Amino acid sequence: MNGIFSDRMQDVPRSFIREILKVTMDPEIISFAGGLPNRAFFPIDELRVATDQVFAERGADCLQYSNSEGLLELRAFIAQRYQEQQGIRLDPEQILITNGSQQALDLLAKVVLNDGESVVVEEPGYLGAIQALSLYRPRYLPVPVHDDGMAVDQLASAVERDRPRLMYTVPNFQNPSGISYSSENRREVAEIIAGRDLLLIEDDPYGALRFRGEASPSFYHLLPDQTVLLGSFSKIVVPGFRLGWIAAPAELYEKLLIAKQAADLHTCNFTQYILLRYLQDNDLDKHISRIIEAYGRQCRAMLAAIDRSFPDTVTCTRPDGGMFLWGRLPDGLPAMDLFERAVARRVVFVPGEPFYTAAGATSTFRLNFSCVGELVITDGIGRIAEAIGEMIA
Amino acid sequence: MNGIFSDRMQDVPRSFIREILKVTMDPEIISFAGGLPNRAFFPIDELRVATDQVFAERGADCLQYSNSEGLLELRAFIAQRYQEQQGIRLDPEQILITNGSQQALDLLAKVVLNDGESVVVEEPGYLGAIQALSLYRPRYLPVPVHDDGMAVDQLASAVERDRPRLMYTVPNFQNPSGISYSSENRREVAEIIAGRDLLLIEDDPYGALRFRGEASPSFYHLLPDQTVLLGSFSKIVVPGFRLGWIAAPAELYEKLLIAKQAADLHTCNFTQYILLRYLQDNDLDKHISRIIEAYGRQCRAMLAAIDRSFPDTVTCTRPDGGMFLWGRLPDGLPAMDLFERAVARRVVFVPGEPFYTAAGATSTFRLNFSCVGELVITDGIGRIAEAIGEMIA
Repeated sequence: MNGIFSDRMQDVPRSFIREILKVTMDPEIISFAGGLPNRAFFPIDELRVATDQVFAERGADCLQYSNSEGLLELRAFIAQRYQEQQGIRLDPEQILITNGSQQALDLLAKVVLNDGESVVVEEPGYLGAIQALSLYRPRYLPVPVHDDGMAVDQLASAVERDRPRLMYTVPNFQNPSGISYSSENRREVAEIIAGRDLLLIEDDPYGALRFRGEASPSFYHLLPDQTVLLGSFSKIVVPGFRLGWIAAPAELYEKLLIAKQAADLHTCNFTQYILLRYLQDNDLDKHISRIIEAYGRQCRAMLAAIDRSFPDTVTCTRPDGGMFLWGRLPDGLPAMDLFERAVARRVVFVPGEPFYTAAGATSTFRLNFSCVGELVITDGIGRIAEAIGEMIA
Repeated sequence: MNGIFSDRMQDVPRSFIREILKVTMDPEIISFAGGLPNRAFFPIDELRVATDQVFAERGADCLQYSNSEGLLELRAFIAQRYQEQQGIRLDPEQILITNGSQQALDLLAKVVLNDGESVVVEEPGYLGAIQALSLYRPRYLPVPVHDDGMAVDQLASAVERDRPRLMYTVPNFQNPSGISYSSENRREVAEIIAGRDLLLIEDDPYGALRFRGEASPSFYHLLPDQTVLLGSFSKIVVPGFRLGWIAAPAELYEKLLIAKQAADLHTCNFTQYILLRYLQDNDLDKHISRIIEAYGRQCRAMLAAIDRSFPDTVTCTRPDGGMFLWGRLPDGLPAMDLFERAVARRVVFVPGEPFYTAAGATSTFRLNFSCVGELVITDGIGRIAEAIGEMIA
């Protein structure tokens, strides 16, 4: 069985995070490495009630094969929420239910990308997106993101030179950096790509988790025909249900639907029914406000501890929402070195390497603040500060 | 947005079945067209109890992100069942939980096939497999299946000439034909492909649904290093949970796991926990025996009605299990013509066209017997017999 694997499997990055997470399984270790929502806010009791009702009301319907698009009522809920929250008008028929937004990425790459075509990605960028796209063998055009969004000069020259087909963005509380694109940056980005054969993917798993400041308008308002919206219930309800969605223009939708059908026929309808019942009987915004309150508190605790204990030469982003912030060591000091010293002090984070499409050491690192209480955050950041002090000395 | 779609989307067959199924939504129409398991046998009460227990025992664990491989206990259950039922020894670490076996097909094609490489498929073959594979742009090598299995002469020359990478088979109660490969046929097939760089996919969603005769041994016994086993809980428990699996050799497993992670991170763990609890607390074989009893009765009713009312020139397979049988009209009469006459009499089935990789009219058709009671079967077959009579006259 030599040579049995396809060429596309040659280019796939090793799962760096997987190795890191092994270290973090030890409960004695303080972990800022994960990317999980805080389980304390899973609405378990409410989901249990919803599940009972689904069994009672839907019987065998919730257990039989179903359509590939997803439950129409759930898609209508999503469309209505876009209208209410963001003034985006969508037909429920434009919404495809997927197994989390990870599957949305796989389907989009499948229907759009030929081998070797170019894709704009954020640098640093979301690891899961890099993994999904890599299987379609793109040429990556990494464009740096700064505190206010994408580096527009570099974007303009990459787009002009390489005519990319896709552009992947997380404009709100980006993973890994925690930054958000300003309204002005969005307008500049939109101007550069308007009218090109280029789809912009706006992945927005964290947008609802804003604990400070005002939202900037979606790219959909600027580029309605070129923007594909990805969303997820993973960070605002529960991730285990694996329920996300794509909102796409009709012609693209039809192709995505064929790809979805070929990929797995349809997403689990049992969990779709439960989620729908939960959303109908509970106040989602009130639920989200509890998550935001905690994440905001934890983020402030982390930033306060950083301000107190890190040297000024270590810089950090100051997110307005989401789950992550992003640090940078001075003078090109390698974050892997810091990681090893931190592990010795029983605290972990993710060194920046896997968030870049090019291999090589970096001095950046990601800190997650969603899953750890304030006292532990203060303790953990103090330990990292010690490790930094040791490195610099 | 011209030219935005990838080349792989150009080759995808239209979903013929989707159009057919629209006709069959009318409850006044007798449908032998579906491919659904009979909902009367969904263990709803038992799953409800299992769900309650999962909420109580697992709490947030069943709702958080999980590993890409699937629940180890569920994988151990599957491995143990292979041992008990078929004498196949597998390590649970060789089993990957997928969103039904449809996703298994997508992942296998993704990690094995390059554009234009050859794949052996059964003719007629399972439509879902043709759809999944088509997105990877294979060259199809269709090999006819007969009452006792695959046409070995044609297989031998196709394998010799075209050096296929994959071969897709449903050796037990094949969809669409209902035929099973005899033990001798399996040996002959195995001899032809042994030692080649060719993976044999043994997809076995119906194997447990035997209502007559003796099982033949899995290809795994003949070709342990070249056989990938696909299985599913859809036909023996419920399809809505979307739980299937791949059992693969270690090197292939590692690639499949990377592809799974990129495709959707992991399969819904909530339904995995529920299924596991159900399997631990209930007698699966007793449950399956009730399904078999009904399907066997319904198949016999269908064959009896066919024997009574179809002319001798219309031939049919006589399945030992599963959900389908396969008919052939005489003298190349087109099954689409029969379909239209049948719709007028308010009875439907699936004409053979979508089960072939080459386009064109056929005189074959598929009849499903899992979802319709005996009286209605007799009525429906009678109506088809009238339509055949009209066509021949």
